Amino acid sequence: MAGKLKKKDYEARLEALQHELNTLHAWMAATGERVLVILEGRDTAGKTGVINAITHRLNPRRTRVVALSKPSEREQGQWYFQRYVEHLPGAGELVLFDRSWYNRAGVEAVMGFCSEAEHKRFLAECPVFERLLVADGIRLFKYWLTLDQAEQERRLAERLDDPLKRWKLSPVDLAARERYADYGKARDRMLRHTDTGEAPWYMVDANDQRRMRIDLVSHLLSKLPYRPMPVEVPPFPPLSGPPGRDRPKVKVRWVPRAGD
Amino acid sequence: MAGKLKKKDYEARLEALQHELNTLHAWMAATGERVLVILEGRDTAGKTGVINAITHRLNPRRTRVVALSKPSEREQGQWYFQRYVEHLPGAGELVLFDRSWYNRAGVEAVMGFCSEAEHKRFLAECPVFERLLVADGIRLFKYWLTLDQAEQERRLAERLDDPLKRWKLSPVDLAARERYADYGKARDRMLRHTDTGEAPWYMVDANDQRRMRIDLVSHLLSKLPYRPMPVEVPPFPPLSGPPGRDRPKVKVRWVPRAGD
Amino acid sequence: MAGKLKKKDYEARLEALQHELNTLHAWMAATGERVLVILEGRDTAGKTGVINAITHRLNPRRTRVVALSKPSEREQGQWYFQRYVEHLPGAGELVLFDRSWYNRAGVEAVMGFCSEAEHKRFLAECPVFERLLVADGIRLFKYWLTLDQAEQERRLAERLDDPLKRWKLSPVDLAARERYADYGKARDRMLRHTDTGEAPWYMVDANDQRRMRIDLVSHLLSKLPYRPMPVEVPPFPPLSGPPGRDRPKVKVRWVPRAGD
Amino acid sequence: MAGKLKKKDYEARLEALQHELNTLHAWMAATGERVLVILEGRDTAGKTGVINAITHRLNPRRTRVVALSKPSEREQGQWYFQRYVEHLPGAGELVLFDRSWYNRAGVEAVMGFCSEAEHKRFLAECPVFERLLVADGIRLFKYWLTLDQAEQERRLAERLDDPLKRWKLSPVDLAARERYADYGKARDRMLRHTDTGEAPWYMVDANDQRRMRIDLVSHLLSKLPYRPMPVEVPPFPPLSGPPGRDRPKVKVRWVPRAGD
Repeated sequence: MAGKLKKKDYEARLEALQHELNTLHAWMAATGERVLVILEGRDTAGKTGVINAITHRLNPRRTRVVALSKPSEREQGQWYFQRYVEHLPGAGELVLFDRSWYNRAGVEAVMGFCSEAEHKRFLAECPVFERLLVADGIRLFKYWLTLDQAEQERRLAERLDDPLKRWKLSPVDLAARERYADYGKARDRMLRHTDTGEAPWYMVDANDQRRMRIDLVSHLLSKLPYRPMPVEVPPFPPLSGPPGRDRPKVKVRWVPRAGD
Repeated sequence: MAGKLKKKDYEARLEALQHELNTLHAWMAATGERVLVILEGRDTAGKTGVINAITHRLNPRRTRVVALSKPSEREQGQWYFQRYVEHLPGAGELVLFDRSWYNRAGVEAVMGFCSEAEHKRFLAECPVFERLLVADGIRLFKYWLTLDQAEQERRLAERLDDPLKRWKLSPVDLAARERYADYGKARDRMLRHTDTGEAPWYMVDANDQRRMRIDLVSHLLSKLPYRPMPVEVPPFPPLSGPPGRDRPKVKVRWVPRAGD
Repeated sequence: MAGKLKKKDYEARLEALQHELNTLHAWMAATGERVLVILEGRDTAGKTGVINAITHRLNPRRTRVVALSKPSEREQGQWYFQRYVEHLPGAGELVLFDRSWYNRAGVEAVMGFCSEAEHKRFLAECPVFERLLVADGIRLFKYWLTLDQAEQERRLAERLDDPLKRWKLSPVDLAARERYADYGKARDRMLRHTDTGEAPWYMVDANDQRRMRIDLVSHLLSKLPYRPMPVEVPPFPPLSGPPGRDRPKVKVRWVPRAGD
Repeated sequence: MAGKLKKKDYEARLEALQHELNTLHAWMAATGERVLVILEGRDTAGKTGVINAITHRLNPRRTRVVALSKPSEREQGQWYFQRYVEHLPGAGELVLFDRSWYNRAGVEAVMGFCSEAEHKRFLAECPVFERLLVADGIRLFKYWLTLDQAEQERRLAERLDDPLKRWKLSPVDLAARERYADYGKARDRMLRHTDTGEAPWYMVDANDQRRMRIDLVSHLLSKLPYRPMPVEVPPFPPLSGPPGRDRPKVKVRWVPRAGD
């Protein structure tokens, strides 16, 4: 491997991938295929960024990003997977989970928000649940973004510094700094139970954000049997008269123009 | 007014505005204020673009974009405003409607998707409905983006040309080209009935996209009595040990690195 | 008026009314008419009972009973009417509200669960809101069940005594006993503001439960312009072979028969 | 066993069972236990009737009846179990399914509303899905109500005759008459795949409706380890003054009293 990916290179590659994603999305619409992408990994690893790179140019009517808050009291009494199930993709939909049911094997287990029995039960049930989804035809992809702590520290400091990013930091994130190794152990335990033939985990090195995005999207595309669909370009004849001006005939308030 | 806004200028101004939006959003969280922004206007006028500019750097947990499809059969039998009501902002939330209940006074009226009686009833009821929301404390902003047809033609042609944008075009959009004047008349009729003291309309010139975004966001901010809230920066002590490396101890699949 | 209505008389009359309700419901299905019935009144006045009498023999797919709990924290930050709006009737539906948005003018005002400003705002906004629903074509009926306190005491004592009814009693209900007069005053204030031409209140004497049910249902029917719809009775030819026996061919567990 | 259960006997037994159900429900509230009862069986077998007998005297805030219509187009594109999952019981809730996901192994399979591949997949996946629910702690009960065709014919004829019951009949129900044996075969196939140790089926003879209700409820109660919870009876001191009369001080409309 080499140094960081240059911005220009990154943008060129990303745009090529977005064309492919667009082709994929059209194929999904035509065939009714459903794709679910789960993104997990260290805080600041770049889950939201890669999601934005994927969704940016796609039809939002068939693209959804799901980032659930912690469960309500009512949800805590329900089947553990229930609140996630309602967000599974329908026909032709691409759904991206920014964190997922794997919270139980990560933050909940490490910070003691669930019991050891609940943790164990999750590790046993989760592969069964995922197998059901895959058997139903949902194409499930699970990515884990790895991030070394030195780089994580750099990013956390940047978030603290930047008022536009500070809301991204929660006290739980900061508490996680001293549990870095524990999170690693919990992740490995999770991998041992849930890295299955039907629903494998893919690790992505996220220390270089741009590379990570290119790598992840390239990999996702390589795993899906899409093909270009015939495109019907609608007719676009010249206007039958001169183009109109958009001027209300009634008295209105105008937003002032900014100076130059 | 002068020529188009240069990219560099635009980006600098936008970033300054995003800082202000961030301050606004923190104020909303602290006070429970609710803000609802309605965006209407010609196809390709740039509603989605300005929404993205506004939401891009804000906490997504308190920001929602609402772009409803055409009503289902069930919804068609309900109170006209019902399906919109469920998306109104809760405490501390900023909600942006990409098109809205004003569909009835625009595309539905012009294309004959509703009856003249329904159109009339809407024009009579809508100001009453909006007054209720404002009386309840919701801060409601209604922007109409004007776009001359010559510029619109240019943008439609570009969308047809660009595979990444083609999904944005619907047959209804293309049918609307020859009804440009009718849409203008319907808009003016709408303005006469719904441009009220409690819920005024603001027109924005959208022929230059960058200026439009800067103008609209500047205006929105100027109308809200927010102020900076005290920020508590959490402590960030040095790590107690050397930073960890993120390497699974179990055998895993890695996403391949892209070449250089 | 005379003594209490005898059980036999009551049942005969109720059944006749249920036939009429059935005719009404068929008319609603055919025409898409929407009916919303709001039931308010003293605790133990019999709101649930009359609702059951109305719904008992109707198609549940087009009948809904709505009895909302106190608002969640999230709902408390929303437009006051929002959580009720989602339960409004769709085409062909009969919806019955067991208590309603009038909580604000009753229990909330008397027990101090809302501020005087919120109470006042409700009294001003509620008629406007209801006028919108009526203008949209929803047929709105508001019944207030009156109950003298001596009878209420008798019923409360019965509920306390009967284990099958005890869950119906909440601490708020018992606290309301000593505020009987205050509830009456709040009700009168509510009537002064919300008894409007478009959405009038109807008082029903609920001291005799059976009479109340007959009176209320008779009144409701008298106010609706329904008429019998032609009924298509599907063909019902004799079976082509001997009737089957329902015996599984596989080994199964049977629920034991109760002895005699 | 003997003849039909007499009405008086039935009512006495049912009331005793309702006391037990009430005790069960209080135990569920105290412990957070979740109970899901699935009711399947021949048309007119009495599913709705036994559900009403169970729910009639229970706190409706923790009791839900779920009778889903046929799936919408959107739902048809989703994971087969998805639309049922959202109705699973939360803590302390009793949920009764009037028909269920077993539609796929019954009406859908027999009438050709699903493919043989979908039918097979359901039979394979359903036990896995149910095992997940049971592992999560949901107490799942599956009852199949058997009904001989002679009795079914009698009940269908009665429904056709009675205007109050005619809406209960759908064309699919009548079409099912000539497929009585096919439904039986489909049911047996279903039993072979889904009568499992974790989620067994229980057959109930429904030829006598009253007995069926008593049998089913008795069985359900016998399978749950509930026990009486201590009941706190709230204090009920005498009123501090004379009981009030419920007479509005404002001019109101009264619902007329029915004559005698």
